[in-house]
Amino acid sequence: MIFSSTLLENAVNEFAKLPGIGKKTALRLVLHLIKQDVQEVQFFSEAISAMREQIKFCKRCHNISDKELCNICSNPMRKQEMICVVENIRDVIAIESTQQFNGVYHVLGGIISPLDGIGPDQLTIDALVDRVSSERPQEIIFALNPNIQGDTTVYYIGRKLKGIPVKITTIARGISFGGELEYADEMTLAKSISNRIPVENYIQAIS
Amino acid sequence: MIFSSTLLENAVNEFAKLPGIGKKTALRLVLHLIKQDVQEVQFFSEAISAMREQIKFCKRCHNISDKELCNICSNPMRKQEMICVVENIRDVIAIESTQQFNGVYHVLGGIISPLDGIGPDQLTIDALVDRVSSERPQEIIFALNPNIQGDTTVYYIGRKLKGIPVKITTIARGISFGGELEYADEMTLAKSISNRIPVENYIQAIS
Repeated sequence: MIFSSTLLENAVNEFAKLPGIGKKTALRLVLHLIKQDVQEVQFFSEAISAMREQIKFCKRCHNISDKELCNICSNPMRKQEMICVVENIRDVIAIESTQQFNGVYHVLGGIISPLDGIGPDQLTIDALVDRVSSERPQEIIFALNPNIQGDTTVYYIGRKLKGIPVKITTIARGISFGGELEYADEMTLAKSISNRIPVENYIQAIS
Repeated sequence: MIFSSTLLENAVNEFAKLPGIGKKTALRLVLHLIKQDVQEVQFFSEAISAMREQIKFCKRCHNISDKELCNICSNPMRKQEMICVVENIRDVIAIESTQQFNGVYHVLGGIISPLDGIGPDQLTIDALVDRVSSERPQEIIFALNPNIQGDTTVYYIGRKLKGIPVKITTIARGISFGGELEYADEMTLAKSISNRIPVENYIQAIS
């Protein structure tokens, strides 16, 4: 691409560094910004740089936060004795959006995956073990993706927590809402049968 | 979406204002930026705000420019007496990328389209007529999209230029390279037959 302006070229190149955005999309975004008010673009630019400079990670749960302790950890209405262990910040946002969980989180910052060169040391597993030892929560809920890496991580942390009296659970695997039995894979279907729940619990859960 | 940080929320909302970017994509882009160096994100933010604040439009051809006159208009190697009329800046970049055109441009800033409420007054047509009257170029090449609006614009400007001795041409319509005759629409095929060119010109053009 040949540009008539280096200012334009720089802006397009910066946008094109973002994941999933090529040069043509970057140009479309930049030409959109050129049409906006100077002040609006200033807001855009400041929101991005302020975010990167000032953002912190909660020292307790490693979630993204504006302060030392995130909104969730510092909220007295949430059950501090129930810790949900997730892979990343996106998962926290997904679970928060359900508005069904009233405990606190622990963000691992990834998942054990030897093939990708990610071992337990790169994650916040030691911090989780320390936290459980000192806080003595009632329950730890693993909400990791249902695959080999997720299961390995659950198994590894489970072993590390041995000896600490705490209830350890994992979110239910099963047929998703709107899913159809005949198209479900065998493993999911088998798990959903072996982990069947009493109908009264089910009715309580959906009502 | 529920965020644990207002800094994060602001950044995601700003990204989500861009065309074709929803909340989930915006979050993915912002989480990518969080992982980058503070300085890199600073470059990104500054490139955008500098672009919007300092960018100018060339006073002669209305192309995007860093100075009063754009690189193309101020380049003595380009044929100043050959003006290519295009709809927008993206078209200038597309034609420049072919490296086949050595004249200068005139960016209309849109196309006459009564259905979208765009009349000749909102475009740089008067500036083009003034420019042709004073500069007296040899040729004006219309490179507009081949549709009703493009043809209307060509017709309108053609009438405005009546009386000024200048050669007016339009880019060729025909079967595109790699296209197949049997799948071409009738109008394109008909035009490509009626506007057939001598084989010696064709060989010259592709060699």
